[in-house]
Amino acid sequence: MSELKGAAIIGQSGGPSSVINASAYGAIRTALDCPSITKVYGAANGIKGVLDDKLYIMDEEDAHELELLKYTPSSALGSCRYKIADPDVDDTDYKRILEIFKKYNVRYFFYNGGNDSMDTCNKISKYMMKAGYECRIMGIPKTIDNDLFGTDHCPGFASAAKYIATSFMEVYHDAHVYDTGMVTIVECMGRHAGWLTAAAELANYAGAGPDLIYLPERDFDMDKFLADVTRIYNATGKCLVAVSEGIHYADGSFVSEAKTAATDGFGHAQLGGLAAMLANIVKEKTGAKVRGIELSLLQRCAAHCASLTDIEESFMSGKTAVEKAVEGITDKMVGFECDRTNGYVCKPKLFELTSVANYEKKVPQEWINAEGNGVTKGFVDYALPLVQGETKLPKENGLPRFAHLKKVVAK
Amino acid sequence: MSELKGAAIIGQSGGPSSVINASAYGAIRTALDCPSITKVYGAANGIKGVLDDKLYIMDEEDAHELELLKYTPSSALGSCRYKIADPDVDDTDYKRILEIFKKYNVRYFFYNGGNDSMDTCNKISKYMMKAGYECRIMGIPKTIDNDLFGTDHCPGFASAAKYIATSFMEVYHDAHVYDTGMVTIVECMGRHAGWLTAAAELANYAGAGPDLIYLPERDFDMDKFLADVTRIYNATGKCLVAVSEGIHYADGSFVSEAKTAATDGFGHAQLGGLAAMLANIVKEKTGAKVRGIELSLLQRCAAHCASLTDIEESFMSGKTAVEKAVEGITDKMVGFECDRTNGYVCKPKLFELTSVANYEKKVPQEWINAEGNGVTKGFVDYALPLVQGETKLPKENGLPRFAHLKKVVAK
Repeated sequence: MSELKGAAIIGQSGGPSSVINASAYGAIRTALDCPSITKVYGAANGIKGVLDDKLYIMDEEDAHELELLKYTPSSALGSCRYKIADPDVDDTDYKRILEIFKKYNVRYFFYNGGNDSMDTCNKISKYMMKAGYECRIMGIPKTIDNDLFGTDHCPGFASAAKYIATSFMEVYHDAHVYDTGMVTIVECMGRHAGWLTAAAELANYAGAGPDLIYLPERDFDMDKFLADVTRIYNATGKCLVAVSEGIHYADGSFVSEAKTAATDGFGHAQLGGLAAMLANIVKEKTGAKVRGIELSLLQRCAAHCASLTDIEESFMSGKTAVEKAVEGITDKMVGFECDRTNGYVCKPKLFELTSVANYEKKVPQEWINAEGNGVTKGFVDYALPLVQGETKLPKENGLPRFAHLKKVVAK
Repeated sequence: MSELKGAAIIGQSGGPSSVINASAYGAIRTALDCPSITKVYGAANGIKGVLDDKLYIMDEEDAHELELLKYTPSSALGSCRYKIADPDVDDTDYKRILEIFKKYNVRYFFYNGGNDSMDTCNKISKYMMKAGYECRIMGIPKTIDNDLFGTDHCPGFASAAKYIATSFMEVYHDAHVYDTGMVTIVECMGRHAGWLTAAAELANYAGAGPDLIYLPERDFDMDKFLADVTRIYNATGKCLVAVSEGIHYADGSFVSEAKTAATDGFGHAQLGGLAAMLANIVKEKTGAKVRGIELSLLQRCAAHCASLTDIEESFMSGKTAVEKAVEGITDKMVGFECDRTNGYVCKPKLFELTSVANYEKKVPQEWINAEGNGVTKGFVDYALPLVQGETKLPKENGLPRFAHLKKVVAK
């Protein structure tokens, strides 16, 4: 394919992760070094930065600060949750995007995000083709939820999994220190897919993990849950539980949203989330000392505990997106294909944007135990290679030294 | 002083910390290597292990596993919250302790814990003197709360402070990623002293910290708090707040325990703790998106983020306790004396057990700003040297490799 010369825009979207900037850096660095790419822009707050004509000039950034993006959590360019319209219904945004692309001679567009971002990518790509404007568009995946279709796993998942497993090991030690009884319930993110909660099982692999794990892939039964906890508590005096925020009853209603006596059985007002609610229910039922812990934002931004494997793969994903686009490929997402038969090998693989968007990948049923209160070795074999290696995040005064970007806005 | 030959017991008590085992290891290793000490026992669950005649033989442990205690969180020997009686009122426990000491020829007793543990140490020491039983008794301090009298700081505080500052920096990045408004309220431990919450200021020193900090050293005023948050939120669209679990109104009642409309102004049922409650109040007041985060147990057990300075000082404290006892000293706690005038120098210093026990050291008023919503440079100068250096915790399969003790019980 003939060389396409022009500028590139890189945008980030959706919820942050510890390594979304490692992907962005993979794309930015590679684009900056590429002769076909004349200028590299970062869109301020994702697609909104394009619509608002607010683009940061990446060429102006200090090379060392850019490199620190590999270890800096959250979206350095800013994120958005803006859902772009269907172009057949309303093409206002698309016309504006085309206008901006023309203004800056943008011929490469890289979008770094989850399901919705791949959908945005896909729609823009289709529109540009229809408009006859040559622009190569690639999706760079990101989501701690690990729920993107096709790819073996998603950049961001492994670092969150590593933080969760590490935290479970530490909480295990804390919760087992007294000779008195204690039930601890830890809530992990994952509204529809239980990948992050399942990661707690890695702590068991390392010898200090939860007794029970509940994922949204199985219907939750409060009576069964209370029986499980009571049985273990009565036998050992302790019980450590991992629950996904997305656990739901058979009728589909979220346990966290159960507000009435009829649904949650106790009629507690809900303030502190699922862990606090379950802790209260277990306390009333068993009389045990119970503590609810919500890992909250910490699990998606704990860059100090990121997986080096995740950082390097995220970088590779961004780098590959640029390389493939320059080679002439468009309309793809750079995911991963992994081989675990003899060690662990991860290679970039291109997926059709149309097949990725708007589909959520769940934890396979065969990786959940028969009782629905734990995960199997299959999951551990899958996830363990992903959490290997430690971040090289530099420290200053004992604290993280994250990237400081100048963010010079293009006129 | 003449040589005193005999066995040593080391016990741990109170809430765990990331480095309490580093202190225990300092004592255990030094005692094992000391010719005057004939045998080294670890008391199972603190003083209860002595009362129950459940002592682990430290001489039987693998040297490498023992060394891993430097990096293993929580109390490896087990802890207790058992409060020993006043010997003038009931000396049953003391008679039993003397009996066990005689049984194993225990001439050295080291107790590793917070305020209550120093009190226990003190009482046992006084009783043994009265009973004419020669036994040297030393306290080895521990408390993330940093509230022990006399010593410059407490082993355990710095690692918790480092984790808190690191987490604030990461949450700061996460909370600033969208171009939409967001208020984030993070609750830190500290019922009566605000040291841990003040540590959030270290994140500001590193450029990514909270806008507001509230400590229990000042009376909390809900109207003032809401005005502070609203002002910053209206000006910047964001507000990141650090609150101590122990903040209280002028009448002394804890904000976290306010249950009625009359006290918290909204009449919310309390389930999820202070952060969730304040988040709800701010949400109703400002209409902003608000998230409450409770750092919970994570801040006291996050050994993966421990301060090397803290680990080494903790070790030194345990080591010094044994060395001084063998030299003939008894009835003291090994705290720290620090000089920050020209770099940072920390030396062990002995404190009278009687002066340490049952007194809580607060954050000095001059380190809290006039508005009572932040801390000053004085605190940063004090705390920053303590969080320097990274743990050398080994990893296996990308996860912590904590110590595994055999815990052979003495017959």
